[in-house]
Amino acid sequence: MMRSAVTAGLPQGWRHVHFDADGLVPVVTQDINTGRVLMLAYANAEALGMALATHRGVYWSRSRRELWIKGSTSGHRQRLVEVALDCDGDAVLYLVEQVGPACHTGAESCFDVGPRMTFSDAGWVA
Amino acid sequence: MMRSAVTAGLPQGWRHVHFDADGLVPVVTQDINTGRVLMLAYANAEALGMALATHRGVYWSRSRRELWIKGSTSGHRQRLVEVALDCDGDAVLYLVEQVGPACHTGAESCFDVGPRMTFSDAGWVA
Repeated sequence: MMRSAVTAGLPQGWRHVHFDADGLVPVVTQDINTGRVLMLAYANAEALGMALATHRGVYWSRSRRELWIKGSTSGHRQRLVEVALDCDGDAVLYLVEQVGPACHTGAESCFDVGPRMTFSDAGWVA
Repeated sequence: MMRSAVTAGLPQGWRHVHFDADGLVPVVTQDINTGRVLMLAYANAEALGMALATHRGVYWSRSRRELWIKGSTSGHRQRLVEVALDCDGDAVLYLVEQVGPACHTGAESCFDVGPRMTFSDAGWVA
């Protein structure tokens, strides 16, 4: 089976990660100190295995089609403090200590750059 | 163009959301009060438009293949307080006030249920 082949290098309990048809799983990266969500990226089995083994934020770059050890060129590394898999095994959470900004634009978070809307509680029925 | 067609109903600034080949964008949902990442789900243009219009956590259920207004059956609604798009337009962040548990298992967060690993800083070179 493809799944057991690609996840054979992962620790017990991580072998039921549901990689998608491209062999990827989305990874939410959160700053463990500030609580801010820094970025959303993807990992393949190799990247996830390397992250778990080296305690670094490691991903698969979809644009460059290569393993992406976050900060290896920019210096903006991530120390992996906690990793969690979600209830249905198709999303991963990296809790990290981030060195410098997480976003390639220089922003603290990738979600600081795009459009943002804030809503008051008027009009919402709880 | 498909993109402009599917995003025509979205507010200005949200029309460059990069939906994937299935017409979906991943959504990270964070509890604005606790800072916890609650879940990772997906939205199509209709779900995102409805979320922005109704200030509710609205998604596309990939398993049920239908619009998913979070909490409409369970009562575990999400009031949308802030929405942000990331730097390259291919991920969305919902900051919500969560009513009850976010996870269908009854856990506060979907990331409380799967395997979790914690690492000390020994062995990491900053």
